[in-house]
This record gives sequence, C-alpha cells and structure tokens, in this order.
Amino acid sequence: MNEGIIEKSLNLIKKVDSLVLSTIDYEGYPNTKAMLKLENKNFDYFYLSTNTSSTKVKHIIRNPKATVYFYDEKNFIGLELIGKIVIINDEIIKSKLWKEEFKIFYKEGKDDPDYCILKFIPEKGNYYENLKNYDFKLR
Amino acid sequence: MNEGIIEKSLNLIKKVDSLVLSTIDYEGYPNTKAMLKLENKNFDYFYLSTNTSSTKVKHIIRNPKATVYFYDEKNFIGLELIGKIVIINDEIIKSKLWKEEFKIFYKEGKDDPDYCILKFIPEKGNYYENLKNYDFKLR
Repeated sequence: MNEGIIEKSLNLIKKVDSLVLSTIDYEGYPNTKAMLKLENKNFDYFYLSTNTSSTKVKHIIRNPKATVYFYDEKNFIGLELIGKIVIINDEIIKSKLWKEEFKIFYKEGKDDPDYCILKFIPEKGNYYENLKNYDFKLR
Repeated sequence: MNEGIIEKSLNLIKKVDSLVLSTIDYEGYPNTKAMLKLENKNFDYFYLSTNTSSTKVKHIIRNPKATVYFYDEKNFIGLELIGKIVIINDEIIKSKLWKEEFKIFYKEGKDDPDYCILKFIPEKGNYYENLKNYDFKLR
C-alpha cells in the first residue's frame, strides 16, 4: 500500500504550484503562509525561498520544527509532510536555485541580501484522499 | 489603513470554500490540514468540523494554540489568523451547524459520535497582498 501512497504523494507535489509552510513562533503558536514550490528531490529535501527579513526566518532559527502542506482543493486531496527546516547560506546553492522572475521579490537579484533559501527535510507524511488518511514514515 | 485591511480580509474569508488549520502535535511540531469553511461571525469566532476520532482533536485538547489560514492562490492573497481553538460539546450548537451533506463524513448524522465541532477564536491576523504584509490585532 505504501508504495502507491508515496507515488500519489509525489504526483500531487508535481501537480501543484504552491505549498503551505507552517512554523512555530516565539509564543509557541503555529504560523502558516503559502509559498511558491521551488525545487525538491522526491522526499529527500525541499527548497523554498523567502525574505531574509521575514519574521518566519527568525522563528526558524529558534525552532526548526515545520510542516509543508500540499493541497488539491478541487479534488480534496492533501499531503502533509512533517520535519525540520533550516536556512541555507551556501551561495552556490542559492545561485543554482535563482530564477529571473524572483526579481519581483528580490530587486537586487540573486545577491539581494533579502533573498533567502530554506531547506525542508520531511521525517513523516500523511496523505488524504477519498476521506481516508494514510500515514507514512520517511526516515 | 486597518479598516481597509479588515474589510479585505473578511472579503477573502467570504470568497474561499476551504481553509487550512494548523495545530501543535505532542512533539511540538505544527500539523496542517485543509478543512471546509463552516461558519464564522466576522472575526469573533469560526466554527469548523472534524472527526472526534482524529489525532488533531487529541492535540487540541493538549494545546489550543492554532492558526487558520485562507488563501486565494490565483491572486496570491493570503490571510493568517492566529489564536486558540476549543472543542464544542454543546448539542444545540452542533445541531444548528449540521448540514445534510455532512453525511459523507458522519454516516449516523448529527448524533454521530464522530461529528465534532471546533471553535476558533483569532487574537491577531496577517493579511498578504501585492507582496506586502499587514499585521493587525483583534483583541
């Protein structure tokens, strides 16, 4: 069963353009924001981009526990991935992930100090389809 | 400025069919799931429905800190509401909120022991549009 669920989960990730990232704030509340999907290697890791100046980055430095959620609203299919998120300062990775259309977010381009890359590594997942939940472990 | 943001936020809530709820699990990770929007009175409270048997309900009993997120993916508009969530056992409220189409989730109808109502009360919000964030307090 798990193989089918893994495949369905990866298909959902491919299909959607955005994801929802939840992190933990200083008071222990979950904070949730939609973000563009950037790049992932199956379930090994997900790269996301955000603003260095955002409150989210400060929260992540304090607490790396995070959830990335993918959602197909029309078909009511959801994928929740729970794991840890870190800030990537490696200029080579940042340069590799840079896209020209990011200029609307980071005016100075890939060297903009506000251009920040996050790396999310999921530990487990939950896939939802046809009113049923499927849990799976990833490491 | 705040009045315009409050109005825009309420318009977004009216417009969308679903929302994303984040709670905190036993290990302190955020857990995130999409849910149908049920009923709200402006920013005073939001009613949501879920399964009594769900892990989410157990997490909420332990930790009421939660975030409800509304998202218009096409226009990249988002609304994050941060506050507390509780389980409602009042049969009158549960009966009032019941809809016949819920039978796909709760086969026994409004008396199904798995039919559970959650009440979310936001304390503050963040509205995102045109690449800009607007924070506001609600109490």
